[in-house]
Amino acid sequence: MIELAHDRTLTVELGERSYPIHIGVGLLNRSDSFVPYLAGSQVMIVTNETVAPHYLDTLRSSLPGHLDVRAVVLPDGEQYKTIEQVGRIWDALLEAGFNRRCTLIALGGGVIGDMVGYAAASYQRGVAFIQVPTTLLSQVDSSVGGKTGVNHPLGKNMIGAFWQPKAVVVDIATLTTLPARELSAGLAEVVKYGFIRDAAFLAWLEQNMTALRRVEPEIVAEAIAKSCQIKANIVAEDETEQGVRALLNLGHTFGHAIEAHQGYGNWLHGEAVGAGMAMAATLSHQLGWISADALERTKKVIESAGLPLVAPTGMSSDDFLTRMRLDKKNVDARLRLVLLNDLGDACVSDATPIETLRQLLDDYPRG
Amino acid sequence: MIELAHDRTLTVELGERSYPIHIGVGLLNRSDSFVPYLAGSQVMIVTNETVAPHYLDTLRSSLPGHLDVRAVVLPDGEQYKTIEQVGRIWDALLEAGFNRRCTLIALGGGVIGDMVGYAAASYQRGVAFIQVPTTLLSQVDSSVGGKTGVNHPLGKNMIGAFWQPKAVVVDIATLTTLPARELSAGLAEVVKYGFIRDAAFLAWLEQNMTALRRVEPEIVAEAIAKSCQIKANIVAEDETEQGVRALLNLGHTFGHAIEAHQGYGNWLHGEAVGAGMAMAATLSHQLGWISADALERTKKVIESAGLPLVAPTGMSSDDFLTRMRLDKKNVDARLRLVLLNDLGDACVSDATPIETLRQLLDDYPRG
Repeated sequence: MIELAHDRTLTVELGERSYPIHIGVGLLNRSDSFVPYLAGSQVMIVTNETVAPHYLDTLRSSLPGHLDVRAVVLPDGEQYKTIEQVGRIWDALLEAGFNRRCTLIALGGGVIGDMVGYAAASYQRGVAFIQVPTTLLSQVDSSVGGKTGVNHPLGKNMIGAFWQPKAVVVDIATLTTLPARELSAGLAEVVKYGFIRDAAFLAWLEQNMTALRRVEPEIVAEAIAKSCQIKANIVAEDETEQGVRALLNLGHTFGHAIEAHQGYGNWLHGEAVGAGMAMAATLSHQLGWISADALERTKKVIESAGLPLVAPTGMSSDDFLTRMRLDKKNVDARLRLVLLNDLGDACVSDATPIETLRQLLDDYPRG
Repeated sequence: MIELAHDRTLTVELGERSYPIHIGVGLLNRSDSFVPYLAGSQVMIVTNETVAPHYLDTLRSSLPGHLDVRAVVLPDGEQYKTIEQVGRIWDALLEAGFNRRCTLIALGGGVIGDMVGYAAASYQRGVAFIQVPTTLLSQVDSSVGGKTGVNHPLGKNMIGAFWQPKAVVVDIATLTTLPARELSAGLAEVVKYGFIRDAAFLAWLEQNMTALRRVEPEIVAEAIAKSCQIKANIVAEDETEQGVRALLNLGHTFGHAIEAHQGYGNWLHGEAVGAGMAMAATLSHQLGWISADALERTKKVIESAGLPLVAPTGMSSDDFLTRMRLDKKNVDARLRLVLLNDLGDACVSDATPIETLRQLLDDYPRG
């Protein structure tokens, strides 16, 4: 097994709800990755049909034998991120007679993490959970910050809660079974952190993109740790998204519209965010906020991560606008977008005239 | 219209989540009961088919005309306290395009309040709501303390969240349309506050029970204010039920078992709690904690409130024990019960041997 020189641990600072993020190779095989964070002896592992064959037995055998460990295996895919699937988790908890001191473990990508987090937030008005993200996307994004929830036919992530895990355990070895397309989708969020907050990290990513796509452990660990640190800092500043946390939505207003229009799961979340960031950068350039060179650099790093720059064929400007109005970042129907002042410096703005936005959407390439 | 000499306002002290409880006659007709607590211009009133004909139009016409006010009318009854009905609220919010600055108003009894609170807690990860309880039970109990949620086929209130309202508006005029049986069910919680925490209030209730059952406004207002104050003090001490708040569950472990066994809605919650408190007092006496006289006084006040003392015919000791094990107050399968040290002094105890409990259940009268 590949060994990192040093495992890394970060802390998300949220007062009494603070929690650690452990990053390393082989953490799934170690009981001390989990035992300190269990609320009691009842443990429910929730995973999906894709991840279970690879890692469910490994995780099970890392948990001490005296615990009452159960598992729920859900179908895989964003289209199953529904209240009905969360209901299956609640059913399993109640059928097992699990009480308020049970602990849920989310073993899988962002969909599993979001659903398990929401299931934990609402079971008996709130129980403990541990995030074990197995995709790059969930390792750098959804497992940090406490946003949990499910989709509704009328909008993504419309039902949910803020609920913090007791710990996040990132085992980089899980990336060896991740398809390349999903790795790229995860890189969308990694480059996003560079765009919104850290020009030096963006430059480092431009240098190391090939190594990242080859999953070189030290480089991947560095990228995950840096990404989690940036996100953790932002979340600590603004846990419930009243201010700076909104910057994390760079590319997401466009991206959510793409995902909803295409049907959840057809475009990966990271792919939609990749195209969405390219659209936000293009708009930022058209508003005169970033230079043509900066726009080109933005597009190049998105493309080098293996992500699409263009919007989906057959998605009209009206399709975008309809979906964007329902986006929950819009307060009192004013359209708020995350745009770039510069590379490494994003801002939230409601200054875009609707005509400018429509022109961008009309002109933007499809493919 | 009946006028009280003075409207009463209490505050539930929860730091930045503190909120007022306004108690008076005719508050539903006043816009200043609601306007200070609206987060924005979008308002969704949620009520049920029983309450809507009496009070929906009144509430609507108390809200300023420039607001975007919608309404959802759900079926009435504990059997509709389900995640599916909460889903209807979410559907209505999304169909109306309501954003994070919307406000939900719960107009109805405890079932409406609990469901609307949970709908608000989970809509876009949390929006504002106002409680307008229209039954005595919800006025003195479920509208104070932030417990929200729904039932599951395998247990009552198993799915939910702690979520505080922005305000509670108690209009005593709504009690004039409340059936006597439901008034008695509300009195169960009122006398409970006397039993657990306040012997002087218990004595006052013994004196004023006839006036309470006749809904004399000054007496009812006093009972509601005192009840809310006791509950508010307990909730402020222990918001998430780690300690003293558990005392509020006097009679509820037996009561929940009765409700679940009978099918939700056949016994009213307050009726089940009435019988449950009589059972808890009987057990307290058998353990030697309260005198025979105190037990008799307990039974008499429960009976004078119009509540049952006996358990349901056909509910076996095993039926009780099976249901009680699933009760969420039991941590790691140790049976925790709220019992009486004295009238006005309750405690949480896990000291009851299972044989003693079974004997009580075997001997306890049914009817």
